[in-house]
Amino acid sequence: MYHIYTDLAIESKELYGGKDVEVEGVSVTTETMNNYSITRVKVSDEKGAQSIRKPIGNYITIDVPDLNNSDEDLKDEISKVLGKEIKNFGLNNSHSKILIIGLGNWNITPDALGPKVVDRVLVTRQFFVNYQKDFDEDMANVAAMAPGVMGITGIESFDIIKGVVDKIKPDLLIAVDALASRKMDRVSTTIQLSDTGISPGGGVGNKRMTLNISTLGIPVLAIGIPTVVNAATIVNDTLDLIISSMKEEAEMGKEFYNILEQLSGEDKYSLIEEVLNPYMKNTIVTPKDIDDVIDDLSIIVANGLNIALHPGIDIKDVNRYIR
Amino acid sequence: MYHIYTDLAIESKELYGGKDVEVEGVSVTTETMNNYSITRVKVSDEKGAQSIRKPIGNYITIDVPDLNNSDEDLKDEISKVLGKEIKNFGLNNSHSKILIIGLGNWNITPDALGPKVVDRVLVTRQFFVNYQKDFDEDMANVAAMAPGVMGITGIESFDIIKGVVDKIKPDLLIAVDALASRKMDRVSTTIQLSDTGISPGGGVGNKRMTLNISTLGIPVLAIGIPTVVNAATIVNDTLDLIISSMKEEAEMGKEFYNILEQLSGEDKYSLIEEVLNPYMKNTIVTPKDIDDVIDDLSIIVANGLNIALHPGIDIKDVNRYIR
Amino acid sequence: MYHIYTDLAIESKELYGGKDVEVEGVSVTTETMNNYSITRVKVSDEKGAQSIRKPIGNYITIDVPDLNNSDEDLKDEISKVLGKEIKNFGLNNSHSKILIIGLGNWNITPDALGPKVVDRVLVTRQFFVNYQKDFDEDMANVAAMAPGVMGITGIESFDIIKGVVDKIKPDLLIAVDALASRKMDRVSTTIQLSDTGISPGGGVGNKRMTLNISTLGIPVLAIGIPTVVNAATIVNDTLDLIISSMKEEAEMGKEFYNILEQLSGEDKYSLIEEVLNPYMKNTIVTPKDIDDVIDDLSIIVANGLNIALHPGIDIKDVNRYIR
Amino acid sequence: MYHIYTDLAIESKELYGGKDVEVEGVSVTTETMNNYSITRVKVSDEKGAQSIRKPIGNYITIDVPDLNNSDEDLKDEISKVLGKEIKNFGLNNSHSKILIIGLGNWNITPDALGPKVVDRVLVTRQFFVNYQKDFDEDMANVAAMAPGVMGITGIESFDIIKGVVDKIKPDLLIAVDALASRKMDRVSTTIQLSDTGISPGGGVGNKRMTLNISTLGIPVLAIGIPTVVNAATIVNDTLDLIISSMKEEAEMGKEFYNILEQLSGEDKYSLIEEVLNPYMKNTIVTPKDIDDVIDDLSIIVANGLNIALHPGIDIKDVNRYIR
Repeated sequence: MYHIYTDLAIESKELYGGKDVEVEGVSVTTETMNNYSITRVKVSDEKGAQSIRKPIGNYITIDVPDLNNSDEDLKDEISKVLGKEIKNFGLNNSHSKILIIGLGNWNITPDALGPKVVDRVLVTRQFFVNYQKDFDEDMANVAAMAPGVMGITGIESFDIIKGVVDKIKPDLLIAVDALASRKMDRVSTTIQLSDTGISPGGGVGNKRMTLNISTLGIPVLAIGIPTVVNAATIVNDTLDLIISSMKEEAEMGKEFYNILEQLSGEDKYSLIEEVLNPYMKNTIVTPKDIDDVIDDLSIIVANGLNIALHPGIDIKDVNRYIR
Repeated sequence: MYHIYTDLAIESKELYGGKDVEVEGVSVTTETMNNYSITRVKVSDEKGAQSIRKPIGNYITIDVPDLNNSDEDLKDEISKVLGKEIKNFGLNNSHSKILIIGLGNWNITPDALGPKVVDRVLVTRQFFVNYQKDFDEDMANVAAMAPGVMGITGIESFDIIKGVVDKIKPDLLIAVDALASRKMDRVSTTIQLSDTGISPGGGVGNKRMTLNISTLGIPVLAIGIPTVVNAATIVNDTLDLIISSMKEEAEMGKEFYNILEQLSGEDKYSLIEEVLNPYMKNTIVTPKDIDDVIDDLSIIVANGLNIALHPGIDIKDVNRYIR
Repeated sequence: MYHIYTDLAIESKELYGGKDVEVEGVSVTTETMNNYSITRVKVSDEKGAQSIRKPIGNYITIDVPDLNNSDEDLKDEISKVLGKEIKNFGLNNSHSKILIIGLGNWNITPDALGPKVVDRVLVTRQFFVNYQKDFDEDMANVAAMAPGVMGITGIESFDIIKGVVDKIKPDLLIAVDALASRKMDRVSTTIQLSDTGISPGGGVGNKRMTLNISTLGIPVLAIGIPTVVNAATIVNDTLDLIISSMKEEAEMGKEFYNILEQLSGEDKYSLIEEVLNPYMKNTIVTPKDIDDVIDDLSIIVANGLNIALHPGIDIKDVNRYIR
Repeated sequence: MYHIYTDLAIESKELYGGKDVEVEGVSVTTETMNNYSITRVKVSDEKGAQSIRKPIGNYITIDVPDLNNSDEDLKDEISKVLGKEIKNFGLNNSHSKILIIGLGNWNITPDALGPKVVDRVLVTRQFFVNYQKDFDEDMANVAAMAPGVMGITGIESFDIIKGVVDKIKPDLLIAVDALASRKMDRVSTTIQLSDTGISPGGGVGNKRMTLNISTLGIPVLAIGIPTVVNAATIVNDTLDLIISSMKEEAEMGKEFYNILEQLSGEDKYSLIEEVLNPYMKNTIVTPKDIDDVIDDLSIIVANGLNIALHPGIDIKDVNRYIR
């Protein structure tokens, strides 16, 4: 059986642990609100980690079904929720020095979420350096950069980040990245936070060094939003829809349908990937208005970060610090 | 049966006339070279037009399988081929006043081909106006603009173009647009030229007024390149691949496979579209590096136009007029 | 004596009418508030028009000394003031169909104010067209476009605008443009509104057709903000500062100083322009952070327009409609 | 007397050593060609360094009076000259690992030269890493990045660069930056190369750590092009023009003129700067079409670097590697 990678712990849990199934060492709780729901996946031991193929730690998923077509009130609400959840990790306080890293390739629109957030987040470290301050009542000490990707710079993102962390010694690294999802309906509607580290380019199969406390020496909070699915996903999902409609409608095809249904979900997915790969390599499936989507999402994340990090900023000012 | 729309006459011929089948009123000739092939579809009467659902006129398709990963020599070669084919339509000469229109939405990368070509093409009309010249030995009189799309301006592209044509009275309108294809392997490898007019936003289902000689009073040459396929296309193609591999490998599923195979290609496509639509609306499938692809293609088209229109420019200077 | 052109009526009045001098046919009133002042220049007859070299009509100047380094509250305040002043012209109501035109060259940062406003203003005409509505309680019918400049398109902006006006027949044209000022301290701190029309490229000496009620058949409201001064201006101003400091400090140079002082301001300016021109042609003087300045100003103007035009938008929502 | 800073050694030599005057420890040779001239300033000892206020080392200035309005042949010629001069420093060979750094603020057009060169230069290190190669016949091992400026990232450029140098250990750092000149006619017509290091933000008065062999442990080649002058420069130059024209034309003002002329050039410049500073802070003087100028210059520099660094690239391919 192929190993199906997904960036989202919630999907990994469903894939390897099953949906609505208890897995030892993994706790899942969901809180449902009017406009969104929050799912907290906690992987508490090595056994849980192996079961769902995600490292030990906390994974929080904010699902906002209407985020795609959200009005401004919903965006503000989600910025606030995001800000609160970031704070709840307890990794920062008003004295923290924070480095925000926007991962991804700014030349490929669906991959540009991280760099766009970095463009928009409030950066303050220069004031602390220039006025030789250690602390400010209203502002945290925040630096931010987008290291680009190896195809652009020739340098591993990890090396750039590690180099900078060693020089400026922040207390916390926050990495923002665009993710790949296995479900179209998660694209630009799900925000995942986790404290287990992140691999630049991880979701697309590159093996680079992971950004986490053991490689960098400081805690890492990762914020990711799926912005693409791969082509196999939509073929798989369509096939499921066709099979289930055929099953209802007719006796015909029962045999084939049975075979397909007997295939575990993953075997089917692997079959599709195998067939598609030579034909669809380097193809992505993305919302038509992905440029606008990335713009909106980067504002939400930057606002959420500004609320979470700076004591003097709350939701009523927050749109003002955004470029 | 659904009506399957495609921007490409060559696909429309295959869909409604059949591949390698003679259709009355439609002639198809293909010329194959080392790096590319040219297919000329001529719809000569109303009967042919109805058969393949494309208006009477000439359609030229330049297929360049390696255009996606082309080196600079191939790009130059295709610019030259394109320049020659544009000239062969016989719609312009050294005295022509030409208006180039870049259709599409500059904020959506795969739709930005037209506006990018307009950015890059050599514009000369201002010199004719400022020096009150009628003719220049080396330069044709060329104006160019991108009218945007209705979602951006609130104005139909047709109205902007018609307004400008009425004011500056060009002899020929050349419209460049990104197209949708039904085949992934045509994306960014096929250039279509036609003298039958073009509808802004046509390929994505909008009904706007068509740019052609009867609506504008001047001939219209359309240049289009597929930059996206819709999601139904890749599901359909994958299904075909799966079915044909299953057919070979096993007895199982024969029944279902027979049913699917009995469905005409179009019925299957329609079924998939129906299933996918609510789920995948506003989703596109596009090359991962679409930003680079659009950049490269816009240079090829702009170079081809510069060669075709300006007597004083040939392939050895052509990269110099490109921004 | 040279004719010194300035885009600003308030400067033209000072130049040709004198500062604090009554000019027949020209009334000037000023209202001073905490953060800004509003000067209303009304040219009521042909005599006044000739005296100050500006056409008959109303000119409103909003001066905001701190606009350059404004906080978000000041920006909101000025958007509101601007919205109110636009409405006060009485040229639009909730049934008006409005076309907003962003003049200028989007490739030259200080000239890109108009195009940037067009990018950011709320465009709604497509909804009226698509739903075949004539009226909406909350939204006016607004279209918007940036025609570019002749150096880019080869087409006079006037011709594009006239063509579109003839096709979509708006009730009011609002033109936004970057202006040249003769004073550095007006750059990005002064907003001028007028109902007397505007010439695309006027301030930089091009003679193009003017956009006004007699050329277009509909009223024209022009909104302009100085974003550059020319080099002669700063030399002139510096010379004045040097002379006045020298006059105080020493007996020396009295003779030269007398000569310079005897030159009318305009002769001195002309002398400087004459000397500078061959040497500084095509040079501009602009704030270092002009990219940010244009961004901020375009948001203020777009917000002001949204407030003025759409009955359902007020200052508390206004930042939400901005891209 | 004020210390007048200039980025250009050739200007510093004129300012502090005098024009056409021999200075001990400083050799100056000029080679004049049809379209350009090359001046080589060699500061050979501490005495020379103190005399002209530039560190010991080599400074090469390529002056190309028509570079501003250059045709494509001139651009290619200058790329080639630049490539040859880079190679002549002897700091790289076909085995060198090179890191190209684009200094400056990508949001401020005249400061974006460095980041634009980085966007356009051929980056190859990823191939050496991915294929675990040490050497390639045609390609050098080149990485490139733009660290931004402290106002954007909150991090000193030096710290980012030092961090990356420590991680990837290149043999040579090449830094590209936009400079300030004291003469308008040097803007975008002069290219300076030097092996003495460069301070990020140096020319505009910031004191950051210098990039040089003693701070980084590897040689540094700096490539700079003036893209702005400050306002004092043009006032000063205009004043000189006015004075010299007045001197010829009339007896009047002799006294004042004599005073001004007696002021050493630098005292006059300082006087002007003092008068202008409160009034013109943060103002720059730049070519109107600076966006195009930066585009052209970045192509020339990127081409020059590609020729100098990669054994397999010469002028006939060079435009092909440029984005």
